[in-house]
Amino acid sequence: MSNESQKSERIEPRLLKGFRDYGPIEQLARQQMFSKIQSVFERFGFLPLSTPVLEYKDILIGKIGEDEKLIYSFKDNGDRDVAMRYDLTVPLARYVAQNQGQLTFPFKRYQIAPVWRADNPQKGRLREFYQCDVDAVGTDSPVADAEVIACLCLALEAVGAKNYKVRLNDRATFEGLSQESIRAMDKLDKIGVDGVVAEMKEKNVSDSEIKTVQQTITGKARIIPKNLADIIELIASNGIDASKIGFDPTIARGLDYYTGTVFEIYLDDAKEFGSICSGGRYDGLVDKFSTQSLPAVGGSIGVDRLIQALTEMGVMENAQPIRALILNQNEELLNNYLKLAADLRAGGVNVEFFYSDAKLDKQFKYAESKGIPYAIIMGEAEVKDGTVQLKDLAKREQETVSVADLTTKLQ
Amino acid sequence: MSNESQKSERIEPRLLKGFRDYGPIEQLARQQMFSKIQSVFERFGFLPLSTPVLEYKDILIGKIGEDEKLIYSFKDNGDRDVAMRYDLTVPLARYVAQNQGQLTFPFKRYQIAPVWRADNPQKGRLREFYQCDVDAVGTDSPVADAEVIACLCLALEAVGAKNYKVRLNDRATFEGLSQESIRAMDKLDKIGVDGVVAEMKEKNVSDSEIKTVQQTITGKARIIPKNLADIIELIASNGIDASKIGFDPTIARGLDYYTGTVFEIYLDDAKEFGSICSGGRYDGLVDKFSTQSLPAVGGSIGVDRLIQALTEMGVMENAQPIRALILNQNEELLNNYLKLAADLRAGGVNVEFFYSDAKLDKQFKYAESKGIPYAIIMGEAEVKDGTVQLKDLAKREQETVSVADLTTKLQ
Repeated sequence: MSNESQKSERIEPRLLKGFRDYGPIEQLARQQMFSKIQSVFERFGFLPLSTPVLEYKDILIGKIGEDEKLIYSFKDNGDRDVAMRYDLTVPLARYVAQNQGQLTFPFKRYQIAPVWRADNPQKGRLREFYQCDVDAVGTDSPVADAEVIACLCLALEAVGAKNYKVRLNDRATFEGLSQESIRAMDKLDKIGVDGVVAEMKEKNVSDSEIKTVQQTITGKARIIPKNLADIIELIASNGIDASKIGFDPTIARGLDYYTGTVFEIYLDDAKEFGSICSGGRYDGLVDKFSTQSLPAVGGSIGVDRLIQALTEMGVMENAQPIRALILNQNEELLNNYLKLAADLRAGGVNVEFFYSDAKLDKQFKYAESKGIPYAIIMGEAEVKDGTVQLKDLAKREQETVSVADLTTKLQ
Repeated sequence: MSNESQKSERIEPRLLKGFRDYGPIEQLARQQMFSKIQSVFERFGFLPLSTPVLEYKDILIGKIGEDEKLIYSFKDNGDRDVAMRYDLTVPLARYVAQNQGQLTFPFKRYQIAPVWRADNPQKGRLREFYQCDVDAVGTDSPVADAEVIACLCLALEAVGAKNYKVRLNDRATFEGLSQESIRAMDKLDKIGVDGVVAEMKEKNVSDSEIKTVQQTITGKARIIPKNLADIIELIASNGIDASKIGFDPTIARGLDYYTGTVFEIYLDDAKEFGSICSGGRYDGLVDKFSTQSLPAVGGSIGVDRLIQALTEMGVMENAQPIRALILNQNEELLNNYLKLAADLRAGGVNVEFFYSDAKLDKQFKYAESKGIPYAIIMGEAEVKDGTVQLKDLAKREQETVSVADLTTKLQ
């Protein structure tokens, strides 16, 4: 209709590399998973926070280390340097510092939202993906460290990942080591001991430091530090099986802002997916924005990776919310069909009505393609009798059901 | 710890103009509202779709008319022209066209997600806001037009907006009018008849066309077109009170892509907020990407505006998910407290435990500031007896409750 559109040619529909759509069945399963995770977080008194996708660029930079180059940033219409959030932790730190006068501490929040990183999509990494974070700000209590970890474990259990291992460490293990060495060590699982050593050499780490790192990652597990032993006991008191939690002196976490406890959680039945959850204590991050010191601890579920793992494990629940399709057989009965649909919906049943009186064959195919288990058939005879024919599409069986009983039958 | 951060000064925490955070209580209420709306959409067989925030710029431009200048666009690291989505309808059209071989039609989806427009924040317009869309693609049946509208009405009812009016029109009413006139008329509520005329003059609309528009918007309601009368009857059959739906020949909708039915929904008890829902039929939009013709109809709830209106009306539900705070009175009992918390949570109760053994005064204040209704007090005597003191913080009353009964009591 507009001048613009009259001129336009067909545009090839396509997605940017590293971006994807989630179609209905997949997205429904994702939403149901998010909802289960949220419930667990709320059980512990964590509440949701929502922060903008765009922030001033200087809020985001200088916090996360070498991955900073992956931040999407640009100049907006007002010539401001803006950036799309890279994670949910830095915006949380900004929020807490900005509102510290109004907040009660400890401030406990969760956030499930997408983040953006211009990563290499050839490695199968998405440029837009969800993070699912839970954090407590304004507390240095190890009870909070334990709570965050326990809460993530229970969230995993709630979505069907019953078997997992928590690998726990403290950044103090690395005292005296350079950031370059910590970043290299964080890649241990991916690049192996030789790769770690090679990277340290490349970054001009001293020979004595390289030796220390080698001893840490190849040596036998060192004696567990007292503070971590305490945290493990507290996690167990939160109802997590203590045998699932262990000290691992090689856990480094790549992000620069961690200062104390660091952890990763792996699924026993999908080890190849790497760490599904991770996090730690970051006592200095909020202080970069804040006038008062606000120590913090948090963790994150890599939900996309978790979903892939659960799918592979065969425990990802198949979402199917539509119970029945009312067939559109006779245009004369249009208002009868709609009233029946309205009654079923009012009774809590998810039901579709086929818009056009297409051939029944087509309508059955539609139900099948959407995985709808029942078809409701109503002709003039049924309207007179106050009944319908209810067809079980899998079993290919049909029975007469009175309209009065239909809601209960389908609930 | 990193070199970068050692150098950095404190950064002033601040938000971009037109962007905002949603703190816990507010965000919880929003989520609960989204969840109710989703349930209504799913009752009708609409399922969720998720599309990326970033699209190729040429996908988004040339579809929406003069507001196109508000699109956030930039060059990404790969020198691609990319843009942040401006609405949820154009990405839906792109998705459907791109996947038409795999989808079953009609394709019914909802999407609740943020969109971005670099609008003037001085007018109180946010630059990031949520849309909540429901659409049926691949159908020209008026049953679909009616279903979309009925579904939005029931969503409003589900969140407490019981009194509303649907104002319905057809773009055919404007046949022969220029896009400039339609856009001007769409602003009728904001700028009045004189404003509409002034804008048309400014855009060099012919005098005879200006006269036609003046007659439409000042004249008595014209006779309702047959197709709209049919749609009203179908909406009523979906369970909506017919007295809430009326023909209004002045409803234009600003977006260029509408081709048939257009509608707006207003709340009787919050008229000053303008239209809370709107939408219509857009039979040409998907075709801009598609090789086959795919007519479509949809609508959108302006959820931010709706929340403001419900809050003003006093019917916005106050979310409060945390039932009790277990006080941390005695570090010796730490594991007892945590086990009690774990048991309550396993029983479905949202309960917090205070991390540190701060003064009880401070702990009570924490509960109060978060609106937690109960405090659970447990000292050595209670541990021995298998009881707790349960304090109702509003009534300032305290009673002894056995641990065995506590879950039921708090559920």
